[in-house]
Amino acid sequence: MTCNNDTAEIEARLLKECRTIVPLMEANLYKGRAGRIGVIGGSLEYTGAPYFSAISALKVGCDLSHVFCPLNAAPVIKSYSPELIVHPILDAGNAVDLIKPWLPRLHVLIVGPGLGKDSGILDTVGSILQFCREQQDYAKPLVIDADGLFMVTKNPKVILNYPKGVILTPNAIEFSRLAKSVLDKDWEATSDPDPEHVRALAVALGSNTTVVHKGQSDVIATASDGVSVVKCAIGGSGRRCGGQGDVLSGSLGTFYFWASLKPVRDPPEGDGCFPPAVIASYAACLLTRECNSRAVAKAGRSTLATDMLEEIHPAFESLFEN
Amino acid sequence: MTCNNDTAEIEARLLKECRTIVPLMEANLYKGRAGRIGVIGGSLEYTGAPYFSAISALKVGCDLSHVFCPLNAAPVIKSYSPELIVHPILDAGNAVDLIKPWLPRLHVLIVGPGLGKDSGILDTVGSILQFCREQQDYAKPLVIDADGLFMVTKNPKVILNYPKGVILTPNAIEFSRLAKSVLDKDWEATSDPDPEHVRALAVALGSNTTVVHKGQSDVIATASDGVSVVKCAIGGSGRRCGGQGDVLSGSLGTFYFWASLKPVRDPPEGDGCFPPAVIASYAACLLTRECNSRAVAKAGRSTLATDMLEEIHPAFESLFEN
Repeated sequence: MTCNNDTAEIEARLLKECRTIVPLMEANLYKGRAGRIGVIGGSLEYTGAPYFSAISALKVGCDLSHVFCPLNAAPVIKSYSPELIVHPILDAGNAVDLIKPWLPRLHVLIVGPGLGKDSGILDTVGSILQFCREQQDYAKPLVIDADGLFMVTKNPKVILNYPKGVILTPNAIEFSRLAKSVLDKDWEATSDPDPEHVRALAVALGSNTTVVHKGQSDVIATASDGVSVVKCAIGGSGRRCGGQGDVLSGSLGTFYFWASLKPVRDPPEGDGCFPPAVIASYAACLLTRECNSRAVAKAGRSTLATDMLEEIHPAFESLFEN
Repeated sequence: MTCNNDTAEIEARLLKECRTIVPLMEANLYKGRAGRIGVIGGSLEYTGAPYFSAISALKVGCDLSHVFCPLNAAPVIKSYSPELIVHPILDAGNAVDLIKPWLPRLHVLIVGPGLGKDSGILDTVGSILQFCREQQDYAKPLVIDADGLFMVTKNPKVILNYPKGVILTPNAIEFSRLAKSVLDKDWEATSDPDPEHVRALAVALGSNTTVVHKGQSDVIATASDGVSVVKCAIGGSGRRCGGQGDVLSGSLGTFYFWASLKPVRDPPEGDGCFPPAVIASYAACLLTRECNSRAVAKAGRSTLATDMLEEIHPAFESLFEN
């Protein structure tokens, strides 16, 4: 089939495709089938970010959410919620050995929320990704955000031509730094980027890479086949409190796993035009923007990331289960 | 223009000016533009105060709220809310070095909530303020409350002629001790002070200083030009539970940053008569008093500071976004 480039039609088709990946909640399912997500993040200063990411993955609908963090961040992250499984391993000398037994049980890794910029920790995370890359059974699809993007900016090789899918979710400034590092381009940070710039970054990082440029509209561009650049402009608001990006990365982790499975409902018409990473990214952007605008409608400029978590269920229902 | 001294007219004009500093929530904003506030406070005993201050700054509408505290206070402050970024540095030997990289990212520092009276910690805070004073790029506007005022009482030089704006928010007893230390006056503590006394303290501490005397009415006096003494007498109640002053200091941090920017809406008539510190102080007093009276209307003498946090959004809307 031919894929049309009309924006409204693309958005309408994408929404339909998002609905096809949402698992049915059947009585014969067992724990874990809806997804087991791992967040690699957290640091002495930043404990909220990995919590927001991991709890968002759960509230979107995965079954188990793990956080891999340094020792001194673990008790605090645990205290935010008994729902999370928190592993204080990132600053152990043998972090790769410690995370290894968990990797086969996880479906997607989210790398970066609250990770911080400590070079020892970033080296450890680099070693984990190197291990994933070398061992086919351990290679997991990745979502990379926040200080995970700082790591990629410092050393793009860490994800270059990674054997599974990688989705990067930079904001304007993170995108501009990535473009400088990967493409040697001096593109100014903007909330309304040239979609071809976003696509150029994805292509440069390898054929499995997708980039979600967050901004006034979110721009999703992928290096893989099919319709390769789409925008998500619905919802959102002018409130930009900390933690919103973590709601996105966590949601994306769960959607990314779902999108990698056979669709549970028939696609809208024939085969879809959209790669799984684009469907997952669009679903996560749409949900996060809808949570933001619903929360802001209630709490205005007092809105915090916690208020957005409360909106995940009603926003999800209205978007994806109608 | 001439500034009239009629109290009711002044209050009406001030309320209008407060509305002019509230940022528009535009879709092209990025995280941090509505403010990044730092609270220096917390101690072994007092962990609630820095939380109330930092979360109030967020709920008034800043984007990111940092707390700089001693090591043993940090896990507890973090556990109150995943929204806060908490740095356990105040009792580290190299606290100034540790806070230095964060200062350029902050717009206002709130010094004192729950800080305690440990002389080592107060010396460290003094060194941080000395560093801010000496390095133009690191000089941040200050809000000083609670044990930060104790520090100033012991050693007024720490803020004397500070190169950026300083707002002190003493209650009656703190004011009386400051007056003794700075002016060598034996003014009895009273909830209804002579406004000229409040102004005298501000003037004695330098031309960038503003004093907010909290009481039955809040009296705001500044050493800078324009209408220099105003009262805020609206709202409030007879309930004086702990934490109310922290709601004020946190709110004031955010308003102070906003007041330092170009007004987003035209001032009511010609140029305003009120210095930014007075507008910010009036906005914070008004909001805190309105939160107090709304919370007390619901919970009476059971009202806690937490109940006031719940009122920040509706109080803000009714006061500043009508």
